[in-house]
Amino acid sequence: MEYLDFAKDLAYQAGKIIKNNFSLKMVTEWKADNTPLTITDTQVNQMVIDKLSLAFPDHSILGEEKSLIKTSSFTWVVDPLDGTIPFSHSYPLFTFSLALTYNGRPVAAVIYDVMLDRLFWAQKDRGAYLDNKKIKVSPTSTLARQLMNVELDVSDFHGIFQKLVFEQKAYASTLYSASYGGILTAAGVMVAEVYAWDKPWDGAAVKLIVEEAGGKVTDLNGKEQRYDRQINGFVASNDLVHDKILALIERARTG
Amino acid sequence: MEYLDFAKDLAYQAGKIIKNNFSLKMVTEWKADNTPLTITDTQVNQMVIDKLSLAFPDHSILGEEKSLIKTSSFTWVVDPLDGTIPFSHSYPLFTFSLALTYNGRPVAAVIYDVMLDRLFWAQKDRGAYLDNKKIKVSPTSTLARQLMNVELDVSDFHGIFQKLVFEQKAYASTLYSASYGGILTAAGVMVAEVYAWDKPWDGAAVKLIVEEAGGKVTDLNGKEQRYDRQINGFVASNDLVHDKILALIERARTG
Repeated sequence: MEYLDFAKDLAYQAGKIIKNNFSLKMVTEWKADNTPLTITDTQVNQMVIDKLSLAFPDHSILGEEKSLIKTSSFTWVVDPLDGTIPFSHSYPLFTFSLALTYNGRPVAAVIYDVMLDRLFWAQKDRGAYLDNKKIKVSPTSTLARQLMNVELDVSDFHGIFQKLVFEQKAYASTLYSASYGGILTAAGVMVAEVYAWDKPWDGAAVKLIVEEAGGKVTDLNGKEQRYDRQINGFVASNDLVHDKILALIERARTG
Repeated sequence: MEYLDFAKDLAYQAGKIIKNNFSLKMVTEWKADNTPLTITDTQVNQMVIDKLSLAFPDHSILGEEKSLIKTSSFTWVVDPLDGTIPFSHSYPLFTFSLALTYNGRPVAAVIYDVMLDRLFWAQKDRGAYLDNKKIKVSPTSTLARQLMNVELDVSDFHGIFQKLVFEQKAYASTLYSASYGGILTAAGVMVAEVYAWDKPWDGAAVKLIVEEAGGKVTDLNGKEQRYDRQINGFVASNDLVHDKILALIERARTG
């Protein structure tokens, strides 16, 4: 509980910085992987490292912009500003995302929807919450008329997968915030978030919050994985449509 | 000016209803075209018809959920809630969109970003504004590292177009709100909104606001069109990348 309270507190502090810095036009740099970076990402990442390393000096910290790696079974995995594209393009779909992992498995997690002031959080085996209300994934077992969010890649894969989704009469958004798709899946309004990149901070908190809400989160092959190192993408779903989505991914890959 | 002030006032009234009705889970019906409908769409559409028909009894009103057609050169074109998918899935990318057209050409327009309380508006030949500040489209002439929003269709077209966009090292979001892509294009943070459906209320206000901000809006073939009847999709851009996007659409169509 100590860890979780600390994480919630950090989320609100981060949210304050992010909200203050939000405006119509922001200066954006570009990283080597052709993704954008604002000073807000850097500033919040540093704040998190400063506070966590003071409170838990033995723990590792793995951050999108900066890390502090120690020999520990505990690693805090943080995306200081998930949704840098939304943030830098002035649409309000960005979050602060933080998970504590133990031997690579998330045990406490928060995702803070900054602009709507919605705090999603979970603890291992204790359920998932939006603020003080328990949340549950969607009870649907079909894809038709359901919405999923997809963050795929620059190859043919995205296009083919999207076409397969449309064939199911389902909707596929691309919001450029994996955690936003994650929290909406946990809250039961989307059926899934499909993410094809390797960044653990985009998946660690989603993994715990969606599973504690009754869903399922695996890598793109349907396997479990650690979240304190590079990941093999992830599918976070309401569980009931999980195998259907894995099958669509498999079909999209084989062309 | 009378028309514009009336439109702004309606936008704020609509925004109040929409914001009050926004919650985590909303009852959604499905229309014949497999798109969702909430009571908020219906309620705001009716409010707009009531108020407009009282103030301007000679004008036609063309609404997404209900219309009131008269013999008039003036038609108000309204989407009472653009972004019903975002609204009904609890992410804050929905607007109230209203344009007054004269012989099919928008002459006054408002798009209200409800959750961030941002009012975008324009009058023919008088510039485009966000609240009280003049806005301008992006000065970039390349697609690389630029974001556009795409609302395409269920065929192969979407997938192929998205692949072509990625090949330019550009980003393509699918937010499920055409007006949201429109206002962000007018404000200079996105380079374009690409929309492949036939609904005039998704394009009428965007047409005027983006062009008054210095951009260009045509149908999918690069042609002018009326916005008081079915449209042939639209591309709204900063003008400088307009032909490049039309060329990508043409390539995507031919396979």
